[in-house]
Amino acid sequence: MRLAELSRRSGVSTATIKYYLREGLLPPGRQVAATSAEYDEEHLRRLRLVRAMIQVGKVPVATVREVLAHADDDSLGRTIRLGAALWALPQVPEPDQDDEYVQTARLEVTKLLDQLGWENAKQLTTLSPAYRSLVVAVAAFRRLGYDWGAELLVPYAELVHRIAVLDLDAMEQYASEAERVEFAVLGAILNEPVLQALHRMAQEEESARRYGFA
Amino acid sequence: MRLAELSRRSGVSTATIKYYLREGLLPPGRQVAATSAEYDEEHLRRLRLVRAMIQVGKVPVATVREVLAHADDDSLGRTIRLGAALWALPQVPEPDQDDEYVQTARLEVTKLLDQLGWENAKQLTTLSPAYRSLVVAVAAFRRLGYDWGAELLVPYAELVHRIAVLDLDAMEQYASEAERVEFAVLGAILNEPVLQALHRMAQEEESARRYGFA
Repeated sequence: MRLAELSRRSGVSTATIKYYLREGLLPPGRQVAATSAEYDEEHLRRLRLVRAMIQVGKVPVATVREVLAHADDDSLGRTIRLGAALWALPQVPEPDQDDEYVQTARLEVTKLLDQLGWENAKQLTTLSPAYRSLVVAVAAFRRLGYDWGAELLVPYAELVHRIAVLDLDAMEQYASEAERVEFAVLGAILNEPVLQALHRMAQEEESARRYGFA
Repeated sequence: MRLAELSRRSGVSTATIKYYLREGLLPPGRQVAATSAEYDEEHLRRLRLVRAMIQVGKVPVATVREVLAHADDDSLGRTIRLGAALWALPQVPEPDQDDEYVQTARLEVTKLLDQLGWENAKQLTTLSPAYRSLVVAVAAFRRLGYDWGAELLVPYAELVHRIAVLDLDAMEQYASEAERVEFAVLGAILNEPVLQALHRMAQEEESARRYGFA
């Protein structure tokens, strides 16, 4: 397809597509004449991903380039390739203080991973931003005087593990490795708002079932 | 306890506590002399909640006042009291366009609620910001050409419903209605980062189990 059709099918203006091409976020089309190039379904798919990261995820252009470089690096195994792409996305900030609460939180998260038997996640703690986010969040609870720790988190972790199984099953429906990594990146940006909204609606439903509306 | 002890036990400076008192975020202590007041465990609890909203949740002071007013309004039934407190928290913005994607997303969410039998959540759609967030997120997927809808969301919704059951069970461990509403507000601010981090770690664990690290 030509640029005009790529624009029509993606809903992205030709000016924006040209900008993405210049920035290297989209691979060049196949040159068919001095002033026109031919694009295919892969361009369309990549364009949708770039737009999702920039418009929905508010990811900076330089970060998009980094995420895509990891996603396209087929010298990496799938777990690290997925991880590298996802870890390049903007993350929660590091703990600004390494106080007793952060230290206790780190111990509690380790205890949690042991109780769950998440041996792989344990090996990823030095790399994974998710591990650091969890420590920060548990420390925030503890700093407020709430006794949150491994015991309370186990049933939550078991349920989110079942959600992760659904995520990976959905990803595996895609035929190519490139599509699978793109789906994972898109999921990280779009799926979390879906889950958060569903969770709040479920709380409202459950609250009304238990206590009524009165 | 005196102001100095309240400060020591909460980790909040006396200057900040005085500011919260002036702003009406904390009820006044019992005046025991011209220049000193006595505070109790309820002040400590409320102080922790206010600090969590402002420091962790980045909730503006005026919004904190609004959330607390709903939490303290014992003329309301529990579902509405919880809802009003949570709905006053900062929410995702409204959809900026009411296009075909938003309309389809709305139909898909209605179909989802029907399939789940979430009759109460259906009654709350005009009030609930969570419903609007879900519509916005599903519309974002569809605008990108992904065919997300009720069918795909049902298994996710069933799992988050089980998470909501855990949330409400935890809340019911508190004896007073005031404590229960406070716990729910705190949960909305602190628990979502915990769940999000746990979800990402579960994806990493499951990915490594399926594909190894290589």
